[in-house]
Amino acid sequence: MNSKDIPMVPNRKASLPTVYGDTPSFLGVPVLDYRKPAAGYDVMIAGVPWEGTVTWGSFTGCELAPRSIRHASARYGGFLPEYEIDLFDHLTLGDVGDIPVHPNDPAETMRNVHAAMQRIYRNQSIPFVLGGDHSFTPEIIRALADGDEGKIGIIHLDAHLDNAKSFGSDQFARCGPIHRISQIPQVRKESIVHLGIRGPRNSPTQYEYAQSMGARVITTREVRERGMSAVTEEAIRIAHHETRHVFVTICSDCIDAGYNPGGPADFNGLLPSELLPALHQIGASGISGLDYVEVYPGQDPQGYSSHLAAWAMIYALSGMAQRKRDRPGPDR
Amino acid sequence: MNSKDIPMVPNRKASLPTVYGDTPSFLGVPVLDYRKPAAGYDVMIAGVPWEGTVTWGSFTGCELAPRSIRHASARYGGFLPEYEIDLFDHLTLGDVGDIPVHPNDPAETMRNVHAAMQRIYRNQSIPFVLGGDHSFTPEIIRALADGDEGKIGIIHLDAHLDNAKSFGSDQFARCGPIHRISQIPQVRKESIVHLGIRGPRNSPTQYEYAQSMGARVITTREVRERGMSAVTEEAIRIAHHETRHVFVTICSDCIDAGYNPGGPADFNGLLPSELLPALHQIGASGISGLDYVEVYPGQDPQGYSSHLAAWAMIYALSGMAQRKRDRPGPDR
Amino acid sequence: MNSKDIPMVPNRKASLPTVYGDTPSFLGVPVLDYRKPAAGYDVMIAGVPWEGTVTWGSFTGCELAPRSIRHASARYGGFLPEYEIDLFDHLTLGDVGDIPVHPNDPAETMRNVHAAMQRIYRNQSIPFVLGGDHSFTPEIIRALADGDEGKIGIIHLDAHLDNAKSFGSDQFARCGPIHRISQIPQVRKESIVHLGIRGPRNSPTQYEYAQSMGARVITTREVRERGMSAVTEEAIRIAHHETRHVFVTICSDCIDAGYNPGGPADFNGLLPSELLPALHQIGASGISGLDYVEVYPGQDPQGYSSHLAAWAMIYALSGMAQRKRDRPGPDR
Amino acid sequence: MNSKDIPMVPNRKASLPTVYGDTPSFLGVPVLDYRKPAAGYDVMIAGVPWEGTVTWGSFTGCELAPRSIRHASARYGGFLPEYEIDLFDHLTLGDVGDIPVHPNDPAETMRNVHAAMQRIYRNQSIPFVLGGDHSFTPEIIRALADGDEGKIGIIHLDAHLDNAKSFGSDQFARCGPIHRISQIPQVRKESIVHLGIRGPRNSPTQYEYAQSMGARVITTREVRERGMSAVTEEAIRIAHHETRHVFVTICSDCIDAGYNPGGPADFNGLLPSELLPALHQIGASGISGLDYVEVYPGQDPQGYSSHLAAWAMIYALSGMAQRKRDRPGPDR
Amino acid sequence: MNSKDIPMVPNRKASLPTVYGDTPSFLGVPVLDYRKPAAGYDVMIAGVPWEGTVTWGSFTGCELAPRSIRHASARYGGFLPEYEIDLFDHLTLGDVGDIPVHPNDPAETMRNVHAAMQRIYRNQSIPFVLGGDHSFTPEIIRALADGDEGKIGIIHLDAHLDNAKSFGSDQFARCGPIHRISQIPQVRKESIVHLGIRGPRNSPTQYEYAQSMGARVITTREVRERGMSAVTEEAIRIAHHETRHVFVTICSDCIDAGYNPGGPADFNGLLPSELLPALHQIGASGISGLDYVEVYPGQDPQGYSSHLAAWAMIYALSGMAQRKRDRPGPDR
Amino acid sequence: MNSKDIPMVPNRKASLPTVYGDTPSFLGVPVLDYRKPAAGYDVMIAGVPWEGTVTWGSFTGCELAPRSIRHASARYGGFLPEYEIDLFDHLTLGDVGDIPVHPNDPAETMRNVHAAMQRIYRNQSIPFVLGGDHSFTPEIIRALADGDEGKIGIIHLDAHLDNAKSFGSDQFARCGPIHRISQIPQVRKESIVHLGIRGPRNSPTQYEYAQSMGARVITTREVRERGMSAVTEEAIRIAHHETRHVFVTICSDCIDAGYNPGGPADFNGLLPSELLPALHQIGASGISGLDYVEVYPGQDPQGYSSHLAAWAMIYALSGMAQRKRDRPGPDR
Repeated sequence: MNSKDIPMVPNRKASLPTVYGDTPSFLGVPVLDYRKPAAGYDVMIAGVPWEGTVTWGSFTGCELAPRSIRHASARYGGFLPEYEIDLFDHLTLGDVGDIPVHPNDPAETMRNVHAAMQRIYRNQSIPFVLGGDHSFTPEIIRALADGDEGKIGIIHLDAHLDNAKSFGSDQFARCGPIHRISQIPQVRKESIVHLGIRGPRNSPTQYEYAQSMGARVITTREVRERGMSAVTEEAIRIAHHETRHVFVTICSDCIDAGYNPGGPADFNGLLPSELLPALHQIGASGISGLDYVEVYPGQDPQGYSSHLAAWAMIYALSGMAQRKRDRPGPDR
Repeated sequence: MNSKDIPMVPNRKASLPTVYGDTPSFLGVPVLDYRKPAAGYDVMIAGVPWEGTVTWGSFTGCELAPRSIRHASARYGGFLPEYEIDLFDHLTLGDVGDIPVHPNDPAETMRNVHAAMQRIYRNQSIPFVLGGDHSFTPEIIRALADGDEGKIGIIHLDAHLDNAKSFGSDQFARCGPIHRISQIPQVRKESIVHLGIRGPRNSPTQYEYAQSMGARVITTREVRERGMSAVTEEAIRIAHHETRHVFVTICSDCIDAGYNPGGPADFNGLLPSELLPALHQIGASGISGLDYVEVYPGQDPQGYSSHLAAWAMIYALSGMAQRKRDRPGPDR
Repeated sequence: MNSKDIPMVPNRKASLPTVYGDTPSFLGVPVLDYRKPAAGYDVMIAGVPWEGTVTWGSFTGCELAPRSIRHASARYGGFLPEYEIDLFDHLTLGDVGDIPVHPNDPAETMRNVHAAMQRIYRNQSIPFVLGGDHSFTPEIIRALADGDEGKIGIIHLDAHLDNAKSFGSDQFARCGPIHRISQIPQVRKESIVHLGIRGPRNSPTQYEYAQSMGARVITTREVRERGMSAVTEEAIRIAHHETRHVFVTICSDCIDAGYNPGGPADFNGLLPSELLPALHQIGASGISGLDYVEVYPGQDPQGYSSHLAAWAMIYALSGMAQRKRDRPGPDR
Repeated sequence: MNSKDIPMVPNRKASLPTVYGDTPSFLGVPVLDYRKPAAGYDVMIAGVPWEGTVTWGSFTGCELAPRSIRHASARYGGFLPEYEIDLFDHLTLGDVGDIPVHPNDPAETMRNVHAAMQRIYRNQSIPFVLGGDHSFTPEIIRALADGDEGKIGIIHLDAHLDNAKSFGSDQFARCGPIHRISQIPQVRKESIVHLGIRGPRNSPTQYEYAQSMGARVITTREVRERGMSAVTEEAIRIAHHETRHVFVTICSDCIDAGYNPGGPADFNGLLPSELLPALHQIGASGISGLDYVEVYPGQDPQGYSSHLAAWAMIYALSGMAQRKRDRPGPDR
Repeated sequence: MNSKDIPMVPNRKASLPTVYGDTPSFLGVPVLDYRKPAAGYDVMIAGVPWEGTVTWGSFTGCELAPRSIRHASARYGGFLPEYEIDLFDHLTLGDVGDIPVHPNDPAETMRNVHAAMQRIYRNQSIPFVLGGDHSFTPEIIRALADGDEGKIGIIHLDAHLDNAKSFGSDQFARCGPIHRISQIPQVRKESIVHLGIRGPRNSPTQYEYAQSMGARVITTREVRERGMSAVTEEAIRIAHHETRHVFVTICSDCIDAGYNPGGPADFNGLLPSELLPALHQIGASGISGLDYVEVYPGQDPQGYSSHLAAWAMIYALSGMAQRKRDRPGPDR
Repeated sequence: MNSKDIPMVPNRKASLPTVYGDTPSFLGVPVLDYRKPAAGYDVMIAGVPWEGTVTWGSFTGCELAPRSIRHASARYGGFLPEYEIDLFDHLTLGDVGDIPVHPNDPAETMRNVHAAMQRIYRNQSIPFVLGGDHSFTPEIIRALADGDEGKIGIIHLDAHLDNAKSFGSDQFARCGPIHRISQIPQVRKESIVHLGIRGPRNSPTQYEYAQSMGARVITTREVRERGMSAVTEEAIRIAHHETRHVFVTICSDCIDAGYNPGGPADFNGLLPSELLPALHQIGASGISGLDYVEVYPGQDPQGYSSHLAAWAMIYALSGMAQRKRDRPGPDR
């Protein structure tokens, strides 16, 4: 088989390495040991099959998403005709499988994510993480910040601000990661960009909090008025401003509900025609990690949202590959 | 609980008042007695769980929509970050529950709707009505016209003209409300605007009828050419021209089929990114009522179309709230 | 019944002629004998209920699409308000039912399609064909080329280039029709236009092959930058350049996944608001046939993709009708 | 058409009278005016599209069942080969459509059911009623008792005792009809038979209440030990003991969950092979009415539970027909 | 791999021969050419992906069943612990794939089935045929009768008598095969046994016709009274009485609806615990062919009915294997 | 609230303690810390949300079952009218939540289960465990055997023998637990009973292995011939013979496929009317633990299989309660 025939290869999925059961690794890349990831990988894929607090009863089951997204990814290769680039020509990827989670113990789960992410960063790789819900993103940022005084900017793609200080008694609620992230000293609050915000699921309290910390809130109303490319350019500029790292955290509900059967019902969101080029653009600007959370496979029989998550990661990786092609040398 | 935390509140749905069974009131507003609605409400929500004639066998079951939309609405609050306004800061809402319908007797059902709407209008409120099919809209307009010589304009958002004079032997068919509305003396025919018209489900006869009565037909082809904001501006201008009232009637199939799993399959329709701002715009222009019809929960397991209906109403209400904020005083 | 009331007619579907079982003919047009199609028809509808090679396990069952699309079409008439034209005022259509297929024998199936298409072309009609998978399109082009030295251009609407020389041992794979078409002497390779190409399901090998044969590849990235109308205009110009015939082959995955529940998951594709006017435009430029393939009814409980296929054909036919109205006389 | 070919008749459903929309009457019998039902009918079908209190969130939507059961019934005729009898040879049936319900007002809904049932009984007919939930059965019994001093026995087929005195603040809860029935003076408490009782959804309180009022509780454990025919014989004997009338009330969860996708999940219930002959047996013993409640079409895409409800009614009617054939003359 | 580990073998399905696309042969047996089937096979599997007349709109799509049943069969081997026998120790099987069908031409489809079955019988094999609908069974019997004066008995497992002389204008309706079979001279009418008959989908006309031709009708009421084993013994005795061949035709609706999500809704039918041992018993009595028809995969997302069809065939084959083990030598 | 009203209590589920997210504890019993379970509990519920090897692609996702079964259990109380006993009058239960699993590391997952079960047994409780797949049962038995020389018998309810020595390279495959169990010295091989065995998914190799180790294999053929009660009595006798402990391991496919939409398709299995009384009988004989595995919520939208799992556990617990009532004092 010629590698340039990928992905149009008979029985491809059955021929890929598995991370567990019959679940192939993301895009069929080599499987690594999450406890001792090998060196030499630009990007490491990891899953966090975790769901903590449920904020709305109908939207649940996102711990199945790492499996579902990996299955979907087996349909794809690394070449994008829109950019005439094959990401595998420039990037080396590995898949460390899933981080162990403790269903009864959010705090220990968070520690596990943190420890695994530390191993990845110490290995000079960057993580691309498949959630799970939105609760664990702060642990990745904390790992990125460990032993690195460089400031960090955040590009947060979401319908909601997700900066609740708590939800009931839960300190690790899926609606609160941006609050916890903003408490990490290296995070520059003015370099937090919320992109895709809209709709009546947002509370006044959260909106005021975002304003008060100096974060930039870009609603889809603004996206429609100025164009996605322009607001993405601004988001990149703000996130990189006076920072060394930029982390990208994508909640599936940044996407318009019409394209996201396995996500919450949030309308007038980013279209794939907006999101995918934006992620390429963001990847090409230089990033230190990405996660994609809140996909609910149980409500999406054809797995469209999992396929879209795989696409999103490929477009971001493709942007990173283009950056590496165009400016060879170490990135981080 | 701080009301500004709404809707991000644990177990919110379970804490809301119910209109019947376990169905919460729309957005959790107070429940009123539909026979004796109290004074002091700007807007009263009412449901009409009615389905009469079925024009296409697969699209049926819209009598469940009032329940389904109310359940969906429990996920939301009144704040929209796009407009930085909380509608509950400016409007008082109540929910009168559902109007009684007589499954075997369309004429009596129509009388019930008419009587209930009279009570709302006499109460100096305006109705926001959840269908049900499109047959009963004329009864709302008739109630609005009762004892008020002011002319009425209509903004009709739909894929179809819905002006059939009859459908078989049915005088109250869902495909005919605009014909019946046009027979009401106070309705100014030249102030009827059909917006969102498209596709091969329209008949030449209906098209000619719309032309002959002087109604304005705006197809989505024109929407694409001129932009939604511009055509909405024109629709508002025409509907308000020489009229005292404007009523908004929304058939779910004005929306593009890709966003409307619980609606008929009508493509190239209005996108939520077009519909929602347009409804805000229309609400801000001053309206005397609105209905939203033809949602089929049975074909929409995740209730996306019901969530979209709730959003649509919130955006229109938000426009009304903005108008009230910006020009205090009585509206109607 | 006044024919100008169509399609808003009670019990319409039950009153239409059937091609088999309870399946009505497409749009209710007369049923013809596929072995001896009568003269005097501008366009003949034919189905090819065939699925050969399965390239991705989840996407299968497209042999049910001719039935499903015909059932959907019964909801529609020939009038489009956007263009103020009724295609039946200008075109005569017939439906020859389905071409016999041999499940075990791709080669014989291909011969059957070829023979049936020859009968249609010799009859001075042009075919509109409902797939089935994408494997049989070359047989239609071969029939068009039989005994006609005129060059042929191809407008290929798809997410993928579909020019694989083989797939495993299968010479008639659904991912290879453009390769087989390019081998037909009358096909002008430089008049092949791929429109809608995108995403990580494309292989570098296929992309290079398209480039090497001189085909024009228009990605959706280019569509977004230049607008659908402009790229369609260019596609029409290239396809008609130095050719006598233009054939249009539409794979359902040219459409954005958000609008195509019964198709593969390919995002950032053509929107119905782009595809439908483009097909009208292409139909109005003069075409010698069209097929629509790769709809999977089994994964699409409401039949949205089948309804969209019916719309697509109606918009193309409407363009043809407009051409005939505006320039009467023989077309081919 | 020969009536003895029914139901194997092409397009039968389309040829039947409708009660509303495109919903045929039950088994295609004549449609009567529910306000003035004509004389001369042995049995009148009526629907009560009502759902009040929801006791378990997942099981809801039973107001759609009258429509769904009628649609299912169009597939059937009156002949049963097991008994070699055609019920239409002996019984005259009519369908009065649906009783009006007031979604916001349980008490008024109950009054409506009561009034309609009075009209049926005064007309010397007996009602077969399609629910709806289990709340309204007492209204039928009250109508039967009006002006008739004869005692009444009850055969209650259910998994649960449904004798709760209240549920929260609801006096008309679906879990309480047997309590309300037992308060009607003409009902002989010792002639109440609960048949099909089982499982951990029953409360000790309800069980003790049934014991204390002297009702006979037959669990499915006893059904398995003694056989369905024997316990049915006993149920008939007890219900007719010192009574003039026997009413049969069937909650769909008497049926084993494996056969009742549109019902609650209650296992080890009555099998159709037990229920259907038992209903024939009960019908043949002489009854004064029957209802069938708690079918949830929304969770049953193929409508199996609605088909089963139609079968159940046909087997009971067939027993009644056999009784009339074998002992001609007035029954009640 | 040890063949005695089958079917518990990793990736078994992917390793089996395919009849087309990615569809494995039934149980993974060798694929034969249906035009020239090789000698030396006891049983040949064939599919007939055909659906003609639709008698009830909801039950359609059975042309997908041959594919669906073959996919299901890949899960199984030939060993049954209940009988401690592996059918592959005694029988040689092949799969000839699907017979070509002509969607528009029932008569030609019937001729194709007839010709293919002639080739199988002339080859000294017997056919096991996967429908499709019930229309083509007479063609198998006609092929069995060709050039063989021996009388033929029929064991017909069904809810319905399927002896309609026509259905509308269709001479090959799925509800009429027994009529057409009874017209074949070698078929002994008194050796036709209908087993599993029940319910209100039967017409008086058909019942009288069965009686008048002397067929034996065994309702499930009789099955319950006498036991399945006893009635099966009687059915075997009648079918073999004064005949040389017995053919078994199984309509999926012989099975109770609770076990047959991909079949029509016919209750109180044969349970798998009755059907499977009965088929073993019948197979062990010596049979000359079998078909299994009317499975609708489209309404059965988990394919239970297709799995059950595969089981049914395995139990019948297992009975045949036991007969061959116990009485070696030629069977037919 | 009177505890004897349970479970018929408004909003019961919302009032129960949660083990994580919005998942209530099993039957609402107290939540315990799985690392330090308190003393004084007769039975501790634990979940193992684990899926390892996938043996048949369609049947996957059983790691969601602990959540799904707990949600279902909230519908139930401890009273069974068939036995007139409330299990909570005699047994004290706790729920320790889920055991942590390591998706990438079967061996560590097994160690976790083992350690957790040791804690439960050392605490003088017995575990009732919700799988997950069938791979971890040996770890429970090993924990039971730790420091206890008493022999152990096994009652294994399943369609399959599940004694594969390996599956490909996996030593912990779901098809192999009985092999691993049989290697534990305290397990008495002749006291292993396989009950419910049937069908073509069994291999000859596994059958011979069961015979060779002296296990008792009871097929459903034997169940039908002798009756469930008799074979259960025999199974209890064999399992208790010369043993101190009996463990019960239930694979959901012991149940007939007609009752198990969330399980594999294995027909002619145990009916709930057989399984539930048998579990009561087994529970009343004295057991030292139980697990219930292989429920796939993803293929079971109404959660019937999860409800059935909850019932199964309640019937077994009810048997234990009856034993304790009838013979007070310590059990193990």
